[in-house]
Parts: sequence; C-alpha cells; structure tokens
Amino acid sequence: MQSLEEQLLKSTRVFEGKIIRLRVDTVRLPDGRQATREVVEHPGAVAVVPILGDGRIALVRQYRHATRQLMLEIPAGKLDKGEDPDVCAARELEEETGFISRSLRKVATVYTTPGFTDEIMHLYVAQQLEPSVQRPDEDEFIQLEYFTRDELRAALQQGAINDAKTMLGLLLAGI
Amino acid sequence: MQSLEEQLLKSTRVFEGKIIRLRVDTVRLPDGRQATREVVEHPGAVAVVPILGDGRIALVRQYRHATRQLMLEIPAGKLDKGEDPDVCAARELEEETGFISRSLRKVATVYTTPGFTDEIMHLYVAQQLEPSVQRPDEDEFIQLEYFTRDELRAALQQGAINDAKTMLGLLLAGI
Repeated sequence: MQSLEEQLLKSTRVFEGKIIRLRVDTVRLPDGRQATREVVEHPGAVAVVPILGDGRIALVRQYRHATRQLMLEIPAGKLDKGEDPDVCAARELEEETGFISRSLRKVATVYTTPGFTDEIMHLYVAQQLEPSVQRPDEDEFIQLEYFTRDELRAALQQGAINDAKTMLGLLLAGI
Repeated sequence: MQSLEEQLLKSTRVFEGKIIRLRVDTVRLPDGRQATREVVEHPGAVAVVPILGDGRIALVRQYRHATRQLMLEIPAGKLDKGEDPDVCAARELEEETGFISRSLRKVATVYTTPGFTDEIMHLYVAQQLEPSVQRPDEDEFIQLEYFTRDELRAALQQGAINDAKTMLGLLLAGI
C-alpha cells in the first residue's frame, strides 16, 4: 500500500507573535508532487471541567476577540514553556475559578484542529474543590458562573455553549 | 457590572495564505488599557460522522503535516466561499467516503479554538448511506476504514483517536 506520509522539503517562518507562530512549509506528497502547508504553531493548552460538591459546574464567561462574542467556556489556558500539563491545569483552575482541586484527572488529550495547527489540548475533570483566590491574567476579564447539569444540558441543546473544548469536556465528564 | 467586551482599535494584516489569513489587532480592554490579539481567519469547516446500515462508522486515516502524524478522523473539509454548510457536508462526505446520505443531520456548531481563530465547525451525523464514488481533493491522500462501536470505544480510550472534532462527533452520535 502507498504511504500516506508527506516529506518536508522547505520551511519558511512567516510570523512570530506573542502566542502563535506561523510557518509555510513545502512538502512532497505521496505521489511525488509538491504542495504547501500553512502551519500555526501554538504552545499547547489545558482545559478543566470543575465539578463542585453539589454537582454544579463552574464555567467562565469571557469575550473572545477572534469570534467577536461573549462565550461560556470551561476554565482553560496555555501551557507555559516546558510546563507540565497537570501543573498548568491546577494553575489555570485556581487562577480562573479560585478553586484548588484535590482530584484533578486527565480525561483526554486532543489536537484542536489538525488541518492547520499543532495546538494540543489536555482536558481534565476537577473534583473535591476547595476555595482559594481567583486571580486571572492581567489582560483577561472573566466572569465565573455556576450551572446545574440540567442547565448545562439545556445550554448545550440551545447552542448557548458553542466552544468545542467545553462541549467535549462536558460530554467526557458525563454531563 | 463592568462590560467584558473589547473594542477594536487597530487591525494589521500579517499574512494571506491559501487557507488561512492572519491579522494582529490592537484592542481596548474593559479597564481602558490596550492589548494585542493575534487572530487566524479561517473559512469554516464541516465534519460528518457516517454511520452505515450495520452500525459501523467510516473514518478516514490521513497524514496531518501540522501534527506530523497519521490521524484517524471523521470525514471533514473546509467551506468553499459562500457555501452552505449542509451542501459542504454532503460534498465532503461523498468526496472522502464515496457515500451519499439520505439522512444528514446537523448535531452541533462549535468554534474549534476561540482563543486565536474564528474557525467555526459544523458537525453532522450521516445515516441511510448509499454508495457513490470516492474522489478526494488532488492534494489529499486518505484511506477509508470502518469501525464497530466497540472498536471505536476502545480506540477512544486508548488515545488512538486524538482529533477533537472526531471525539466530539462520535460522542454526539452516541458512540
């Protein structure tokens, strides 16, 4: 059977940003022809489903400039350079919700959109939450809200939750 | 309560590619300070969970240059300019699997990763499949494979499926 793999021939750096970097690669296709691939490099991220003792879920509402709308999402954030995803998950959970978890469990690791980016997302479920102090990043304006499972199911059905990692995290948490 | 929204102050086009475009925006934060936002513009996409009459699911295996690996995914593709997502879903299903569906149902619309891109993904479940002709895009090398629900559950648990839209689509299809 013919291999499906592509061979890298040339790589051109196009952009180096604060968060993402962009390169345009030339590859050799399995049939010998050439094609270009636009690749967004991302440091990777974590996202956490925080489940309170009474079964409610904590979500953050925040404005997303890329989509130009307020979105309801599970707490999430980018990996610092070299940071362990487990450490990052605990950090982001505490920063965005003010909770520390005594049961933080990884439930999946996925590529968010492999057609054009290497972004990898580690998804967690956090239980046994204890109050600490919420302290979002300085350019992050978020509002913490709590939902019952019934409210979340309704929000999912109505399209009020339209963020992929949030929908996936909630389904993996059994919502 | 303070608004969470950001106001666009300035927008600079950085890259215009074949598939994505990149701009760097300056925004005014809710507290009056300024921040930059890197935004990848994407035409939007569809993805389809094709369920055969015998309950098996058709997936495509393809090499993803961005993640440098062979990945197992539900059939998917980008929207052509102005294309209706329903039309695109039927087209991509036929191109990648060689099936026409007499029951193509939208199950979700999500932003894939709203922190840095406007990419929107329309997810479908396709049933009542009838054979047509597989004809992938000319720079697309894919291999069609069929899985029972039990095989898919095992693949999900083992991490053999690590694409977000695929995992989400399978869960929404009740796998």
